[in-house]
Amino acid sequence: MSKKTKKALRPKARLPKGMRDVEAAELRAVAEMTEKIRAVYERYGFEPLDTPAFEYTDALGKFLPDQDRPNEGVFSFQDEDEQWLSLRYDLTAPLARYVAQNYDALPKPFRRYQLGPVWRNEKPGPGRFRQFMQFDADTVGTDNVAADAEMCMLAADAMEALGIKRGDYVIRVNSRKVLDGVMDAADIPPEKRLTVLRAIDKYDRLGIEGVRQLLGSGRKDESGDFTPGAELPERSANLLLDFMTTDIPAETEAAEGDVLVKHQVSLMEREWPGLDTPEFLEGIEKIDRIRQLVAGCGFGTDRIRFDPSVVRGLEYYTGLVFEAELTFQVEDEDGRPVRFGSVGGGGRYDGLVSRFKGAEVPATGFSIGVSRLYAALKALGKIETGAKHGPVVVLVMDHDRTADYARMTQSLRAAGIRTEMYVGTAGMKAQMKYADKRAAPCVVIQGEDERARGEVQIKDLIEGAKLSEQIEDNVSWREGRPAQFSVPEDEMIEAVQSVLARYR
Amino acid sequence: MSKKTKKALRPKARLPKGMRDVEAAELRAVAEMTEKIRAVYERYGFEPLDTPAFEYTDALGKFLPDQDRPNEGVFSFQDEDEQWLSLRYDLTAPLARYVAQNYDALPKPFRRYQLGPVWRNEKPGPGRFRQFMQFDADTVGTDNVAADAEMCMLAADAMEALGIKRGDYVIRVNSRKVLDGVMDAADIPPEKRLTVLRAIDKYDRLGIEGVRQLLGSGRKDESGDFTPGAELPERSANLLLDFMTTDIPAETEAAEGDVLVKHQVSLMEREWPGLDTPEFLEGIEKIDRIRQLVAGCGFGTDRIRFDPSVVRGLEYYTGLVFEAELTFQVEDEDGRPVRFGSVGGGGRYDGLVSRFKGAEVPATGFSIGVSRLYAALKALGKIETGAKHGPVVVLVMDHDRTADYARMTQSLRAAGIRTEMYVGTAGMKAQMKYADKRAAPCVVIQGEDERARGEVQIKDLIEGAKLSEQIEDNVSWREGRPAQFSVPEDEMIEAVQSVLARYR
Repeated sequence: MSKKTKKALRPKARLPKGMRDVEAAELRAVAEMTEKIRAVYERYGFEPLDTPAFEYTDALGKFLPDQDRPNEGVFSFQDEDEQWLSLRYDLTAPLARYVAQNYDALPKPFRRYQLGPVWRNEKPGPGRFRQFMQFDADTVGTDNVAADAEMCMLAADAMEALGIKRGDYVIRVNSRKVLDGVMDAADIPPEKRLTVLRAIDKYDRLGIEGVRQLLGSGRKDESGDFTPGAELPERSANLLLDFMTTDIPAETEAAEGDVLVKHQVSLMEREWPGLDTPEFLEGIEKIDRIRQLVAGCGFGTDRIRFDPSVVRGLEYYTGLVFEAELTFQVEDEDGRPVRFGSVGGGGRYDGLVSRFKGAEVPATGFSIGVSRLYAALKALGKIETGAKHGPVVVLVMDHDRTADYARMTQSLRAAGIRTEMYVGTAGMKAQMKYADKRAAPCVVIQGEDERARGEVQIKDLIEGAKLSEQIEDNVSWREGRPAQFSVPEDEMIEAVQSVLARYR
Repeated sequence: MSKKTKKALRPKARLPKGMRDVEAAELRAVAEMTEKIRAVYERYGFEPLDTPAFEYTDALGKFLPDQDRPNEGVFSFQDEDEQWLSLRYDLTAPLARYVAQNYDALPKPFRRYQLGPVWRNEKPGPGRFRQFMQFDADTVGTDNVAADAEMCMLAADAMEALGIKRGDYVIRVNSRKVLDGVMDAADIPPEKRLTVLRAIDKYDRLGIEGVRQLLGSGRKDESGDFTPGAELPERSANLLLDFMTTDIPAETEAAEGDVLVKHQVSLMEREWPGLDTPEFLEGIEKIDRIRQLVAGCGFGTDRIRFDPSVVRGLEYYTGLVFEAELTFQVEDEDGRPVRFGSVGGGGRYDGLVSRFKGAEVPATGFSIGVSRLYAALKALGKIETGAKHGPVVVLVMDHDRTADYARMTQSLRAAGIRTEMYVGTAGMKAQMKYADKRAAPCVVIQGEDERARGEVQIKDLIEGAKLSEQIEDNVSWREGRPAQFSVPEDEMIEAVQSVLARYR
């Protein structure tokens, strides 16, 4: 076979579209984040559960959130019985299957949390991947609004556990029933409602004028792409825009026991009669109950508040919806201010379990987008990047004496010190380069001379790097913090520990 | 629509074949286990990496370990460009892709660990699932045998970190080159070697007589199923069986600096000339280097030792192979003694990365089967099951006062106490049942009377359960450890803490 043919047969090493590898610094940071979230979920009494990566496609159902094209957007394949399987697109659909399958054995209400990757077969883009991590808490088997209030408090507590200051986040609450009521009052025909909800959902990003265009004749974006509008009569559009933007007066917010939301609605009803349908009032009532419950627990409207522009999960949620939003601004690469926006959301989904069981099984939950939150915390400077140093590296000065260096390495490890011996085959210079690349705090060296004296040399690479930057005053450092020194071999562990203590 | 038709449309809530849900007790135990393994991998200087769940099928290659039917055994599907994707069947093939893709940027040797699920489209059976967890450490980019020795020490240290006593496990070492040399000396033709290796691989399970049958005319198992044999001439079979069973004399094991393996081989060579091919001797030399290195680090043959019956990964490994075996016996459901056998393995795979790059990139690694190890540790009694209690439950005695109970719940959580309020809608009796099912250590009760007195009642459910078993001596317990008592509401937190302190 010619060389050329051989090369053509070689596969290219590449990631599937929309996928990514996650390297050490991010993995360590994400592990720290998820431990903090887990501690909150645990404190709230939720229990862990893990379900498999894929399910029978019919068991997942057509409930892909934020996606109104059923059965698209998932990765599917057939098993040997020709049954269709799909990778889970969220953690809620598998929970519904689990609850339906194990209903009798579970405590009711059933409270579980789950952390894991989900997969979406959607168009990837900057920051949009086809595999990402979610961290969910759900309460299944109760329509008690106290369970919803708890979800909001849980989300708020999780944000603060992650080091996000009060004021830098808010949990926004709305109800699909309220939105339906407003659309009823605005006489919006059923076939236009999806377009209207999608327009409202963009309020955050496009502002009120953008939404007005999408409710009307349509909108052309910066790139020139045109999105057709809902073509609503002006009166209908005005009602929606009014509802989304009615300011809640500060004194009302503060007034204890005041029925905040009803107050806001009554302001509107003067102008918009017909808003008081039973469904609408039920939605308003629920939102107000949440406000009372969380206020009673000391959660002010700076942490959890009603926001009429929250839409979420068009096919999915049946009543209350929640969204965790980061409100602080960061600068993008070009120095322009950017808001992070949503890092999680949830709400009531009373239909998911009953699909299997027939009987109604009301449920509520909250899902944190871990990957998105990681990006946000990194921008906030809440993620330490590269601060942690690598392992101590024991150099191999003489490959015939590998057994001696291996023994030193093991004795350092046995003392709890993260250590590696250089296991390549290169010489001293390449080994020092390797130690630098590994961010080793120090290396342990035993050449022929040191061995003859029963010593080892310890070289502090962090101090060494500093010194090579400021070589002037080299008398004082030699005495204070020597970057390189020898000790008897049986004092090696203490000597390495003393160097590590410099960088704790 | 009739009721019957409606029912027919409902999907059945069921798990895909070979899949399982993992519930709280196991998840907590597995998390504890993997933290212990992670601590060892970290101490050895490995860095975490995460790769996506699926890869392009051509990038995964045909290297499914322990499986000689290429491209079977995986779950595959096509993306929108009609390129084939497959769920990873192990963590090594994705590592090879990662290293090839990022070669220039990586420190060399590159040391990484990875924990994650893998998927195999194989026939499920008892204890055999289609998704399971592996925890791997690999060193890529060196043919230094010190890297292999390190893998064996890492595996041994991981076993002990998990609480498995010395003597209850062993890391067994062999070389495919040694096996090839023995097969050369035994004149075994190429077409029979796979059958022969499979037979040797079953030594653990079938014993020497079983292997003898599989090397000869074949073997009928207990169920009557017949496995055809390799039909070797008696002389060839005897050489193999001799090689596998040559006892290592105890005094040789103990002798410091003695070349154990060579000693064993020299014993054999008297009877089997022609064993000294260069490949065979290279394999023996490597095994002996490992023995010297690990012995120098204080790892005796009770922890890491040569074992000629280790085969592993027929298509996969190119030289040294390792296997972590649990040697203790447990009893199965019928009281019969069972050995756990292998809980992990690894070895040299010098071909995986070079598939992409052309140039040789030698590598070595070790993989722990987390799910299998969990089952083993549970049988060993090293897993606490059900010992940990559930959250404190605040009962809702009057649903109109939910806000008060929510406030009490939040104040307990704020004090770091795992607590939940009952968020269902049922009455007192059902709530007590719920608290029992949740394994609550205690419940907090505030009925009308307690409220009037500004008190809460704490009911210790663990003590209460004990008391209802031994009701005789009910004077002494009332004074010592009351199962139910009242405190002023502002002493609730301390009172709950005092009950929890009983069960720490």
